Amino acid sequence: MPTFKTTFRVSWVDTDAAQIVHFSNYFRYFERAEEEFYRSLGFNFESLSRESSIILPRVEAHCNYRNPLKFNDIVEIELSIKEIREKAVKYLFKVYNKTEEKLAAEGHLVVVAVDKNSMKATKIPEEIVKRLMPYMET
Amino acid sequence: MPTFKTTFRVSWVDTDAAQIVHFSNYFRYFERAEEEFYRSLGFNFESLSRESSIILPRVEAHCNYRNPLKFNDIVEIELSIKEIREKAVKYLFKVYNKTEEKLAAEGHLVVVAVDKNSMKATKIPEEIVKRLMPYMET
Amino acid sequence: MPTFKTTFRVSWVDTDAAQIVHFSNYFRYFERAEEEFYRSLGFNFESLSRESSIILPRVEAHCNYRNPLKFNDIVEIELSIKEIREKAVKYLFKVYNKTEEKLAAEGHLVVVAVDKNSMKATKIPEEIVKRLMPYMET
Amino acid sequence: MPTFKTTFRVSWVDTDAAQIVHFSNYFRYFERAEEEFYRSLGFNFESLSRESSIILPRVEAHCNYRNPLKFNDIVEIELSIKEIREKAVKYLFKVYNKTEEKLAAEGHLVVVAVDKNSMKATKIPEEIVKRLMPYMET
Repeated sequence: MPTFKTTFRVSWVDTDAAQIVHFSNYFRYFERAEEEFYRSLGFNFESLSRESSIILPRVEAHCNYRNPLKFNDIVEIELSIKEIREKAVKYLFKVYNKTEEKLAAEGHLVVVAVDKNSMKATKIPEEIVKRLMPYMET
Repeated sequence: MPTFKTTFRVSWVDTDAAQIVHFSNYFRYFERAEEEFYRSLGFNFESLSRESSIILPRVEAHCNYRNPLKFNDIVEIELSIKEIREKAVKYLFKVYNKTEEKLAAEGHLVVVAVDKNSMKATKIPEEIVKRLMPYMET
Repeated sequence: MPTFKTTFRVSWVDTDAAQIVHFSNYFRYFERAEEEFYRSLGFNFESLSRESSIILPRVEAHCNYRNPLKFNDIVEIELSIKEIREKAVKYLFKVYNKTEEKLAAEGHLVVVAVDKNSMKATKIPEEIVKRLMPYMET
Repeated sequence: MPTFKTTFRVSWVDTDAAQIVHFSNYFRYFERAEEEFYRSLGFNFESLSRESSIILPRVEAHCNYRNPLKFNDIVEIELSIKEIREKAVKYLFKVYNKTEEKLAAEGHLVVVAVDKNSMKATKIPEEIVKRLMPYMET
């Protein structure tokens, strides 16, 4: 199964007084991976909205925390696709702490394609589906 | 079933370019309700750490998004307890948009009591359990 | 000189690994006070944009840090107006740590009225100026 | 004058309902550049604290906003040093929008070396000063 990977360092601002990454920031990390994934496929939230009138609101977000991340740790996020439905996609994320060689967290996001004019759920454009398909878990 | 409620306005900084509250901020809202809940019971993250050597890392976070929140909307968060185990608590959160009289989101957090010296899971102090019990869903 | 005051607690998420409020969050506190100030005067960013086509981008932000804020500290922000020009307002902020009875920080924001259609600087509506005037430093 | 540069994309979460980067996030961008600058010199906030017992709290932060940044814009931050005193350093930051070839903002941070045990201002270790010197504006 092909996955998309992105790597970065934990920033100081991501930490809290327990000296670990605040749990809410993992969802920002998920989105960061999603953004770079789309960019690697040749589109982004803004071009999707402008060219196809589609926005991708989240309908579900989930995270299981395994081992804390600390300031300056190298983070690798692995994104794969669990499911592509007509109007929704479920992304899986694994967050690795490469500094300590540990799984830090794993979770998922479910995003729905919404027509930004009618604000109703709509089909994901075929062109986009075609680009996502190779990352489907099998 | 008694629940704990807290109310505030959506801040400008909580919104994103889709002109709605960013999905990661709902987890910050959950924690905000949790903080005020503890405060109402007479303790907080810091006093718990100082007096009982206990920290409360999250092991699971989940949110289902129903209707977007916008800048200046009045938010009411309802916190209840789904489960109290020896070393863990599962909190449920309902996020209401009081401006539009809609359910905005619902989710949960599972927190584990960890001894900050051994960094191992530990029993939730009985005194704390006693204060939490009235908020258990029945 | 009349000032506008608002009070809240430091949230856990506002802290960083130095166990104090991250320096960038003081600017969020400034804006939070500004939002509540406007609300007390009967308008907000959104109503201003909708009714007068005006947005208020910041052109300058400044903060001097005096004493750190910690989790759960009671914060009081005092907002006053240093200057009202035709198209700009300069707000002063004093951030007090009420738990320790210390000045935590002081700073300012300069905001400019911009017509959201032309995206050019524009006069602050007279009605708004009238409501701001009583908070001018003398 | 040698400067340190770092480049990244504007993330969705950095934007607000005006569809531009929230003004407080420029300070996070400044710190991000500072972190990568230190990393390029072979140390970081955490190693400095562990090896030299020194922390670097900010005593002053300032930003002038010139042109808004939008989602997905390529940001380049240029860091230079305006002044090195015995116990403090003043960093200058220029934030360029490389997508639109415009200066987005410029500002500064003043950081003070503090002994984390005594919590008093202390000399910046000579070894650190030596590494910072080449980035001094002349």
